[in-house]
Amino acid sequence: MRNIDTLYKLFLEELAKRKLQQEPQELYAPINYIMELGGKRLRPILLLMTYELFKDDIEQAMPLAYAIETFHNFSLVHDDIMDEATLRRGKPTVHHKFDTNTGILSGDVMLIYVYQYLLELESNKNITQIIKTFNQVAIEVCEGQQMDMNFETRIDVQLSEYIEMIGKKTAVLLAGAIKMGALAADASNEDAQHAYEFGKNVGIAFQLQDDLLDSFGDPKKFGKKVGGDIIQNKKTYLVLKALELASPEEGKSLLQILSNTKIPESEKVDTVKSIFTKLEIPTHTKLAKEKYQKLALQHLDAINVPESRKILVKKLAEEMLGRET
Amino acid sequence: MRNIDTLYKLFLEELAKRKLQQEPQELYAPINYIMELGGKRLRPILLLMTYELFKDDIEQAMPLAYAIETFHNFSLVHDDIMDEATLRRGKPTVHHKFDTNTGILSGDVMLIYVYQYLLELESNKNITQIIKTFNQVAIEVCEGQQMDMNFETRIDVQLSEYIEMIGKKTAVLLAGAIKMGALAADASNEDAQHAYEFGKNVGIAFQLQDDLLDSFGDPKKFGKKVGGDIIQNKKTYLVLKALELASPEEGKSLLQILSNTKIPESEKVDTVKSIFTKLEIPTHTKLAKEKYQKLALQHLDAINVPESRKILVKKLAEEMLGRET
Repeated sequence: MRNIDTLYKLFLEELAKRKLQQEPQELYAPINYIMELGGKRLRPILLLMTYELFKDDIEQAMPLAYAIETFHNFSLVHDDIMDEATLRRGKPTVHHKFDTNTGILSGDVMLIYVYQYLLELESNKNITQIIKTFNQVAIEVCEGQQMDMNFETRIDVQLSEYIEMIGKKTAVLLAGAIKMGALAADASNEDAQHAYEFGKNVGIAFQLQDDLLDSFGDPKKFGKKVGGDIIQNKKTYLVLKALELASPEEGKSLLQILSNTKIPESEKVDTVKSIFTKLEIPTHTKLAKEKYQKLALQHLDAINVPESRKILVKKLAEEMLGRET
Repeated sequence: MRNIDTLYKLFLEELAKRKLQQEPQELYAPINYIMELGGKRLRPILLLMTYELFKDDIEQAMPLAYAIETFHNFSLVHDDIMDEATLRRGKPTVHHKFDTNTGILSGDVMLIYVYQYLLELESNKNITQIIKTFNQVAIEVCEGQQMDMNFETRIDVQLSEYIEMIGKKTAVLLAGAIKMGALAADASNEDAQHAYEFGKNVGIAFQLQDDLLDSFGDPKKFGKKVGGDIIQNKKTYLVLKALELASPEEGKSLLQILSNTKIPESEKVDTVKSIFTKLEIPTHTKLAKEKYQKLALQHLDAINVPESRKILVKKLAEEMLGRET
C-alpha cells in the first residue's frame, strides 16, 4: 500500500510525462499552465487508493487518475470564466492570463482529452462502465454549476436543494473518481457502489466543513480570506440553516445585511457571524457534516476487502474532514 | 437504399425523440433550441449513407448520427461566443438569446452527451475505434478553430496552412462522421480509411467552393450576403492565392484595401473582386476545388462495395459541390 505522499509524487511524475507539446501552442500552453498550477490532487489520489483496495498494480489506473484531474481542471477553467474570477491558487486564472476565447477553447479540448485518457484502458473489461460512470458524473457537475448560478438570483433556496447542488457540483466528481478506481480494479458492482457513496458523502461533508471554515476558520490555517462567502452574499449551508431557524424578522434582517454592499466588510462579517452564533449555526453545521461523514464511513466499512487495506483511505478521509475551526 | 429526403426525415424524427427534458431547464433549454434551429444535417445524413454502403439496418447507426450533429452544434455554440456572432441560421445565437455563461455551460454538457450517445453502440465490436476516431476529429476541430483565430492577426499565412486549417476546422468532422458510419457497419480498416479520405476531400472542396461563392456567388442563390468575407477582411483561399500571384505592390495594395474600414462596403467589395478577376482567382479556386473533388471520388471508388450502393453518396457529394457561381 502506497501512502499519500508516494501517490502524490507518482501523480506529479505522470503529469510531467504527459505535458502537451502539440501545435498550435496557443491552444495547448494554457492546458499545461492550469495542470501545473498545483493543488492537492485529492481526486486522482483517492482514485488510485481505491484501486489499491482491490489490486496492487496501480500504474494501470494512472490514465484514469490523469483523466479525472484533467476534467477537474477543465471545470475550473470554464467556471472561472463564468465567475469572472481573476485568481486561482494565487495565480492568474487561464482566461485572465491568456484570454476568454482561449479559456473556452482550451477547456473544450481538455474535455476531449479526458476521453482519450479514459480510452487508454480500452482493454479493461469494465471500460464502457467506467466511461458511463464518468459521463454521468460530468453531466451532474454541469447541472450543479447551473443550479449554483440559478441560486444567485433566488431567495427561496431550500436546504435540500443546497445539498443536491453541492452533491452535484462538488461531491459526485470525488464519488465518480473513487468508483472508477474500483471498477478499473474489477471490484464487484456492489463494492463499486459503496465506493461511490463513500466518496459522495465525504464530498458533501467536506463542502459543509468548507462552508463553516469560510466564516469561522482560523485565519492562520484557512487558505482563503475568512468571511469571503458572507462578503459575497453566498447562499451557503450556514445562511440557509440560519434562515430555517430564524424568526421571520430575524431572517429578513439577515438577508438585508448579506445583500448590503455599503457597510464595511469587517462589520458585515462580524454582524452576520454573531447571528450565526446566536442561532448555533456552527454546531448545526458540524452535526450535518458528521452525519455525512458517518454515512461515508459506513459505506467504506461495507466494501468487501480486508480492513487492513482500508487504513490509508480512512486516514485520508479523516484528514480531509478533520480540519478544526 | 434510402434517399436524402428519407434520411433527413428519419433524422428529424430522432431529434424530436431525443429532446432533453431534464432539470435544470436553464441548462437544457438552450441545447434543444440550437438542435432544433435547422440546418441541412449533412453530417448525420452522410454518416447514415456511409453505413448503408455496407449494411441496411441504419437505425443501428442513428445514435452516432445524433452524436455527430450534437458535436457540430456544440462547436457552433462555442464558436459563436468566440466570434461574438449574434445570428445563426437567421435566429439569435445561443449566447445572445440566453447569455454567455449559459452558452459555455450548455455547450460543455452537449459535448459530454456526445459520448453518451456514442456509448449507445457499446455492443458494437468497433466501439473503442469509433470513439477514438471521434476524439481525434474533435481535437482537430479545436486545433482548426485556434489556427483560424491565430490567422486573424497574422499577415504571412501560407496557402498550405490555410488548407490545413480548413481541413481541421471543417473537413475532418465530415470525414470522421463518414468513417464512424463505416466502422459501425463493420467495414474493413482499408474501406473505413477510404471513407475518411473521401469525406475529408469533399469537406475541403466544399469550403473552397464556399470561399468562392462568398465573393462571386449569385446573390439570389447564395444564402449569405455576397462579399461578407471581403468586408470582414477574412484570409480566404481567394485572398491567399491572390497574394501568391500578385506582384509585391499589388499584394500590398490588396492588403491595404482589405483592412480599410473607411471606404464604403460596396466599393471595397467591387475593388477586391476586380483584383481577384484580374488575377484569375475564380479559375484558380475552381481548379483547386476540382482537385480535391477528384481525390474524393477516387477514394469513394476505392471502397470495396458494389458501385450500385454508392450512387446516393456520389449524388449527395455532387449536389454539395455543384453549386454554380
